[in-house]
Amino acid sequence: MSDASAPHAWCEATPALGEPMLALVRRLFPICRSITGNGVRETLRIVGEVVPLTMHEVASGTRVLDWTIPKEWNIRDGYIADARGNRVVDFRANNLHVVGYSTPVRARMPLDQLQSHLYSLPEQPDLIPYRTSYYEQRWGFCLSHRQRLALAPGDYDVVIDSTLTDGGLSYGECVLRGTSDEEVLFYTHTCHPSLANDNLSGIVVCAYLARLLGSVEHRYTYRFVFGPGTIGSLAWLSRHQEHLPKIRHGLVAVLLGDRAGLRYKQSRQGDHVIDRVVARVLRQTGRPHTIEPFSPYGYDERQFGSPGFNLPVGRLSRSAEEGYPEYHTSADTPVMIAAEALSESLRACVEVCATLESDACYVNTRPFGEPQLGRYGLYRKAGGDALPDRERALLWVLNYSDGDHSLIDIAERSGLTMRAVCGAADDLVAAGLLVPRS
Amino acid sequence: MSDASAPHAWCEATPALGEPMLALVRRLFPICRSITGNGVRETLRIVGEVVPLTMHEVASGTRVLDWTIPKEWNIRDGYIADARGNRVVDFRANNLHVVGYSTPVRARMPLDQLQSHLYSLPEQPDLIPYRTSYYEQRWGFCLSHRQRLALAPGDYDVVIDSTLTDGGLSYGECVLRGTSDEEVLFYTHTCHPSLANDNLSGIVVCAYLARLLGSVEHRYTYRFVFGPGTIGSLAWLSRHQEHLPKIRHGLVAVLLGDRAGLRYKQSRQGDHVIDRVVARVLRQTGRPHTIEPFSPYGYDERQFGSPGFNLPVGRLSRSAEEGYPEYHTSADTPVMIAAEALSESLRACVEVCATLESDACYVNTRPFGEPQLGRYGLYRKAGGDALPDRERALLWVLNYSDGDHSLIDIAERSGLTMRAVCGAADDLVAAGLLVPRS
Amino acid sequence: MSDASAPHAWCEATPALGEPMLALVRRLFPICRSITGNGVRETLRIVGEVVPLTMHEVASGTRVLDWTIPKEWNIRDGYIADARGNRVVDFRANNLHVVGYSTPVRARMPLDQLQSHLYSLPEQPDLIPYRTSYYEQRWGFCLSHRQRLALAPGDYDVVIDSTLTDGGLSYGECVLRGTSDEEVLFYTHTCHPSLANDNLSGIVVCAYLARLLGSVEHRYTYRFVFGPGTIGSLAWLSRHQEHLPKIRHGLVAVLLGDRAGLRYKQSRQGDHVIDRVVARVLRQTGRPHTIEPFSPYGYDERQFGSPGFNLPVGRLSRSAEEGYPEYHTSADTPVMIAAEALSESLRACVEVCATLESDACYVNTRPFGEPQLGRYGLYRKAGGDALPDRERALLWVLNYSDGDHSLIDIAERSGLTMRAVCGAADDLVAAGLLVPRS
Repeated sequence: MSDASAPHAWCEATPALGEPMLALVRRLFPICRSITGNGVRETLRIVGEVVPLTMHEVASGTRVLDWTIPKEWNIRDGYIADARGNRVVDFRANNLHVVGYSTPVRARMPLDQLQSHLYSLPEQPDLIPYRTSYYEQRWGFCLSHRQRLALAPGDYDVVIDSTLTDGGLSYGECVLRGTSDEEVLFYTHTCHPSLANDNLSGIVVCAYLARLLGSVEHRYTYRFVFGPGTIGSLAWLSRHQEHLPKIRHGLVAVLLGDRAGLRYKQSRQGDHVIDRVVARVLRQTGRPHTIEPFSPYGYDERQFGSPGFNLPVGRLSRSAEEGYPEYHTSADTPVMIAAEALSESLRACVEVCATLESDACYVNTRPFGEPQLGRYGLYRKAGGDALPDRERALLWVLNYSDGDHSLIDIAERSGLTMRAVCGAADDLVAAGLLVPRS
Repeated sequence: MSDASAPHAWCEATPALGEPMLALVRRLFPICRSITGNGVRETLRIVGEVVPLTMHEVASGTRVLDWTIPKEWNIRDGYIADARGNRVVDFRANNLHVVGYSTPVRARMPLDQLQSHLYSLPEQPDLIPYRTSYYEQRWGFCLSHRQRLALAPGDYDVVIDSTLTDGGLSYGECVLRGTSDEEVLFYTHTCHPSLANDNLSGIVVCAYLARLLGSVEHRYTYRFVFGPGTIGSLAWLSRHQEHLPKIRHGLVAVLLGDRAGLRYKQSRQGDHVIDRVVARVLRQTGRPHTIEPFSPYGYDERQFGSPGFNLPVGRLSRSAEEGYPEYHTSADTPVMIAAEALSESLRACVEVCATLESDACYVNTRPFGEPQLGRYGLYRKAGGDALPDRERALLWVLNYSDGDHSLIDIAERSGLTMRAVCGAADDLVAAGLLVPRS
Repeated sequence: MSDASAPHAWCEATPALGEPMLALVRRLFPICRSITGNGVRETLRIVGEVVPLTMHEVASGTRVLDWTIPKEWNIRDGYIADARGNRVVDFRANNLHVVGYSTPVRARMPLDQLQSHLYSLPEQPDLIPYRTSYYEQRWGFCLSHRQRLALAPGDYDVVIDSTLTDGGLSYGECVLRGTSDEEVLFYTHTCHPSLANDNLSGIVVCAYLARLLGSVEHRYTYRFVFGPGTIGSLAWLSRHQEHLPKIRHGLVAVLLGDRAGLRYKQSRQGDHVIDRVVARVLRQTGRPHTIEPFSPYGYDERQFGSPGFNLPVGRLSRSAEEGYPEYHTSADTPVMIAAEALSESLRACVEVCATLESDACYVNTRPFGEPQLGRYGLYRKAGGDALPDRERALLWVLNYSDGDHSLIDIAERSGLTMRAVCGAADDLVAAGLLVPRS
């Protein structure tokens, strides 16, 4: 592996990418996305400008595991107008105003009757909530509680110009082949309309991570899936059941732009290599972070971590779902997102990949006593000095390369950086003192 | 199982039972009990008014494991009288005054000679100690240290009108058959004379627990044994060796009436289901409590937990043995006992039984991804809302019903109440999404 | 085992041995030792006055594992003299002045040229460093940084009157045969010149420990090896490969004279009996101490703990290597050593041996319920009393003598002293209630 592409050098590009990622969040923000429809396709097309995506469509009506792909939903307009024809609630002002997957409607009705179709947040009276009804045919409007209270009694015109038609669920995939067909999977959901942290942040971090990995050599094959939440990962899992044994590690990468510290939710297995690697990467940032055990709710980790699949897929985010006041409201705009947060998130992902890339298991060829490192040019000249860090790394790698411990294990046990451990392993391999475990 | 008999509804009866239990303590208090004799029979007869007991007798001289059932001891009277015939120490005033199992005596002797037969507590000069000599033929008197110091030199008449005859060791048993022949065992000792907390409290809690369980449907067979300490459990174990494999869980239930927090001593195995269930029940009381590891002394848990039997039997008490100043003295009277303490102890026992009853191991019939709960009527209507607790419980139960985790495991892992987890399991079974593990 | 030689009585001799050990440190201090040569032989000869040593020589050129025994080094004189013939650096004043294994030299050179052969400590300007060059042919002088700065420009006469000849590596061994051929190994390094704590302290503690053990009966065979660091343990391991399975426990005993608290470095296995025993002994001192995990550097524990050997050998010291400012400098003199520290270190070693000696695994012959201790004369007479400690120990030993737990396990679990547990076991064996596990 050439020095330029050495895994731990990959991180240097990340600080400069905060601003481009934030610009991409702003560009994608206005688009009305859902679990199906043209908004998703447009989003994937734009992401495809950053990194080549293969587009996939799963037809409405297709059975995926216990679920069925629903009809495709598209919307042109939606509003509530008062008697004078003023749009008092308007989809064109904010696409959160229409409940996702609302059936078409064109009617006049008194406020009393309309109320059962309205959603607002009394506790956060200035914010529009985000609501959907994918699998139950309904229509509705979301509005701020102040708006709602201001609605005068009387008749209103209600229009939702939407369609529910046989179409397809769209997802995009970027596969970066490595020298091995063992895979690292990244999944990020694409189904939320104008919500920035949830989850344009995850989309842009995955896009730029894929772009970065596409520019360097790597051992693992990396697969990035940009698809809707729940039904998207179910569709993907359903179509890739034969393929799943190749997935060695995975991350659901979402909510990566806000100012909270990084947060890792462990895979269902809890002590898988991905769990240890992410914990290590977060610890090495030296910044506050959180590690939480698996739970069967949240985002798509719940599908990858269902008992039948039980894949080693954790979740990296900053805030958790329901974890910040702007969550699932009109306040989740690009203002919530910091370029530095995006680049720090990206860097953590890169470090995770670099650590996975550089992990390996070796066997010491001189396991009885220490080899005489000086004979191999690996020892300081004068005895009696303090032990240099480099030599310390050599000794750790030699001692624990007993066939049971990988370089990650050795880094954990020794407290050394992965970079130091990998450097020592390279030197020992070159000296013939270490061979890869067959 | 009908709703009325649902395990977690059983607890509602307990608060009202505090006063009746305390009344029973007061009624049993004056009786002179020992490891054998008519006082025990009378005690069991009265307990039999609360819950039907089968009486058992093991004849004196019967070999039980490494021990032999001793002769039966009964006592009519006992006193020390001074030269003027005044009873200065009188069994009729307090049955603790005569050392348990004292051989008969009728003699006159000077104080000097009498002293070697007297027991008192210099550190607690107002209290009469409790002493016995079951396996060594002796006689003696217990008295307060002040009484002892007040004894004037001179001759005393010493009378103990007791008998040691071939008879039997008595214990009572209440077996409540469930739908399964797997058993939960409760053992409480009956051998202490006028001591209230040790152990009339345990006797009344077991009696009322049996009465409560007798009024509801249950899966486990519950067996309550009211017998003397050590020799009683040894006799029972000796006679039930073939039966022991049916015992799935057990508790020695003693010292349950004082005002200390509940205290659980783990079974010898330490991590058995009973240990986890009691810990969970105590935690959920939200009140201070103690959990301690097994030790091979204390009460009858030491026999159930001897290495040859090694049964999953823990011990529930409030204070520990030797754990309160009134322990084994004349101050352990019904004044020490609080009705609320008895009912809280009873409630903890009921909760333990309810938790054991409701535990089960299921298998998810749709383990690949989440089932579409909405199709089964198990999902909230509008997406985007915060996750309701009920749905959270459904997801936990689905995800961990992989054949390796019981409902108790799932409750522990999720932090949900057993009630929530069981409710979710019931709903999922009804929907066909869960089946009992075969 | 007679009472006089009971393991736990061995400790009584240790306090009186602090001063004799310190006197021996002072006597050995002036000798110029290295990994080979006459200084080591003289040191071993003097140690042989305390305890009989068998001397071994491994010839120069002998292959030992990945290493080769170097030529033997001896030195008569060495100095740097100024133009007026004044010795400004003089081996005779302090043997640290000459780099260990310096090749002979006799030359005149200007200060500029001499500088590359000089070693000093700018941060500790008054101290002479300790340096060696065993496997690279060089010569050099160590001096205080103040001395170095005071050297005037100009020519200097440089003389090292050393020899590097075919000879041998010397080590001494003391083997104390026990009733079993299972061994406890002690290793201490002998290769440092005038450094007191590192490691005359280890040498004298091992010598006096061997002397003490030689005067009592014991079960284990104890083997003490006094040899040079690294190449010495490698040579010993290389020659004893067939023998290694007999080594049940081991300690590298070094740096045992300074005033820091005792410090234990675990064996590579980390949870071996030796690790638990030393931790227990240190805990029972009631004094501050440190326990650290294995790491593959330090002293000879790194050879015993190399992955091919993986022997259960920990390390007992006070300070760690590099752990005190005087480490590897001319300030590591007998002034650093406290007689009380030496005797406390010796006592800890004795306690470790005593604990290992007294450990055993027994089986309860009456495992079903408790045996009736009173029948065996092992029970207090009157029931009702508080449980005496002696009886508590009997119950712990009976309950856990199930074939899976040794006396050390029982001591750990019960919190009782090893002395109490062993005493109980002795009583139970005498009563026929316990038999050694076959």
